[in-house]
Amino acid sequence: MQLVQTPRDALLKPLLTVAGIVERRHTLPILANILMRKQGGKVSFIATDLEVQITTHAEFGVGADDESLTVAARKLVDILRALPDVGDVKLSTASSKLAVQTGKSRFSLQTLPANDFPVMSQPERWDVSLTLPRKTLKHLFNMVHFAMAQQDIRYYLNGMLLVFEPGMLRAVSTDGHRLAHGSTQADGITQLTEVIVPRKTVLEMQRLLDDSDEPVTIDVAPGQIRFSFGQVELVSKLVEGKFPDFKRVIPSNYTRHFDVSREALQGSLQRAAILTSEKFRSVRLQLGQHLLKISSTNAEQEEAQEELDIDYGHEALDVGFNVSYLLDFLANVKTETIRWSVMPDANASALITLPEEDSFKYVVMPMRI
Amino acid sequence: MQLVQTPRDALLKPLLTVAGIVERRHTLPILANILMRKQGGKVSFIATDLEVQITTHAEFGVGADDESLTVAARKLVDILRALPDVGDVKLSTASSKLAVQTGKSRFSLQTLPANDFPVMSQPERWDVSLTLPRKTLKHLFNMVHFAMAQQDIRYYLNGMLLVFEPGMLRAVSTDGHRLAHGSTQADGITQLTEVIVPRKTVLEMQRLLDDSDEPVTIDVAPGQIRFSFGQVELVSKLVEGKFPDFKRVIPSNYTRHFDVSREALQGSLQRAAILTSEKFRSVRLQLGQHLLKISSTNAEQEEAQEELDIDYGHEALDVGFNVSYLLDFLANVKTETIRWSVMPDANASALITLPEEDSFKYVVMPMRI
Repeated sequence: MQLVQTPRDALLKPLLTVAGIVERRHTLPILANILMRKQGGKVSFIATDLEVQITTHAEFGVGADDESLTVAARKLVDILRALPDVGDVKLSTASSKLAVQTGKSRFSLQTLPANDFPVMSQPERWDVSLTLPRKTLKHLFNMVHFAMAQQDIRYYLNGMLLVFEPGMLRAVSTDGHRLAHGSTQADGITQLTEVIVPRKTVLEMQRLLDDSDEPVTIDVAPGQIRFSFGQVELVSKLVEGKFPDFKRVIPSNYTRHFDVSREALQGSLQRAAILTSEKFRSVRLQLGQHLLKISSTNAEQEEAQEELDIDYGHEALDVGFNVSYLLDFLANVKTETIRWSVMPDANASALITLPEEDSFKYVVMPMRI
Repeated sequence: MQLVQTPRDALLKPLLTVAGIVERRHTLPILANILMRKQGGKVSFIATDLEVQITTHAEFGVGADDESLTVAARKLVDILRALPDVGDVKLSTASSKLAVQTGKSRFSLQTLPANDFPVMSQPERWDVSLTLPRKTLKHLFNMVHFAMAQQDIRYYLNGMLLVFEPGMLRAVSTDGHRLAHGSTQADGITQLTEVIVPRKTVLEMQRLLDDSDEPVTIDVAPGQIRFSFGQVELVSKLVEGKFPDFKRVIPSNYTRHFDVSREALQGSLQRAAILTSEKFRSVRLQLGQHLLKISSTNAEQEEAQEELDIDYGHEALDVGFNVSYLLDFLANVKTETIRWSVMPDANASALITLPEEDSFKYVVMPMRI
């Protein structure tokens, strides 16, 4: 039975949308596959890793018949990518194989039954529902994602906290050494709801969201979150667990600060990072009168010293940081200037904010040097 | 003592020329270093991995004094790359450290004594000496390098055979399954000399040689080869051993052939490769009347079939090849058309030549399918 006839790129687009979450290593063979469901002219594509599921569809089905099958995601994508873009690509089924045909190229791919594909069950109703411009949500994720933990035994840190509260959506991530916080205005939220979105879901949403003013709708139910935008629907399990109290971590009593060019600070730290020890990666920041000295040293007694002129006239401070935490932040934030708030205590965290963006807060714990 | 004062990029250039061969993992700590020798205004840079040694120099020494030291190649390169390109960079020495300074950045790097650096001893005289345009030698290496073996137990295959013979320089490489041969006219050679140049030396020369008509001189002595071009000198040990007799491998009695577009063949093979088994990577080529069928199949009984129209009117042939060997060749050769010569025997090697370039020959052994 013929299923699809369409130009190569039209077929690649929905496949690439969903195939990003297909894991290379998987315990269930069918998880290497995508589910294709043809209902008349509409063809849906679904991929899942049992935690996240992405669905999209396109209107290039041929004929009135319905058909469902699953086929290896990567092989199909690789074949389509390698095809010359001449003429239509045809997909058809015969004796449990999927045939891909265009010009003088023919491929026959193994299928597995659509019924065996583990489609996530969705709740009957969603408790929270919020619609934002896509670029707003993407920006929020971009500003906060880099502080998420990765494969931490404290599994609730391997994700991003989303706090839905009246008038506002907050996003917070932390790995226990640093914490990033951002928020955006949001209408229509009536009650406080906190959820932890898995790391992979956040990264996938960053990949899928464009910078447009078009809407994305977020729905939350116990244990599940759904993002809907355009023809794409991403459903994800939530991380159970108690996220650290970010309000206690973000200091509020800082009175002294200096502004510094993001690019200049980034350059100095990148150079100092070359002569840190591989294990500790610590750099020393010394604040003096209108001067920030950045220095590092390693096990071979090699040294880097950098100086930046700053507008700071308060008492001196001498404090160490893991340079990776500072560089992560500086690489992800795109503003011209950053504001560094100072506590007169070498054991206190640093608070970094952006003069151009009120809601953003980045807290970094010091290191003993 | 001050050693060097020069713009950043002027200092980076000789460092990048020599630092490419510095290995990340090494048994002798000093092999992570480069040797810097200042003799008045001239500063030489030498790097070695005990097999290959590269030397270059520049005229940016400050003062009349002489000094020699060794310093970590990668750290110095990383620091210079990370510096803003404003004002001169100064290098100086004090108490066995090398100071790097520019603007408000200062670095102090550990040194090791120049006397401990294992500079390769060179022979008093060289037996063979040949000068070619750089682009000619680079092209020869580009056309032949991809068939070299890699970490083969037959160590003499992990390199490229260079044959100096009156009127001609040949280059040959083989890993036992395929063989690439090229040659170029060369004057001034009086006697036959065959040497095996290590794989790393070949790859490094491909990186260092430009596509200019400027000369490169090759000198050969027992156990050593030297390439001199511009301000660069690369000296390499040779591989001992007996290289396979390439003349016996290259068939000469082929009478039937067809020409095919390189790009079309490459596309068909790339697609067929997606459905080969990961272990064997075999594709089947079936020659019929004016038709080349390419097909593959894998353990999941998936299949690819491709067809190309060709100008071939002889008997049919059905033969298998490792698709990687064909794709390697097609990716490295840049001509529009390739010529495939056929023996009427499925167990005979294929000979691929280039209508546009007589000297090039590529032989691929068949695979049983």
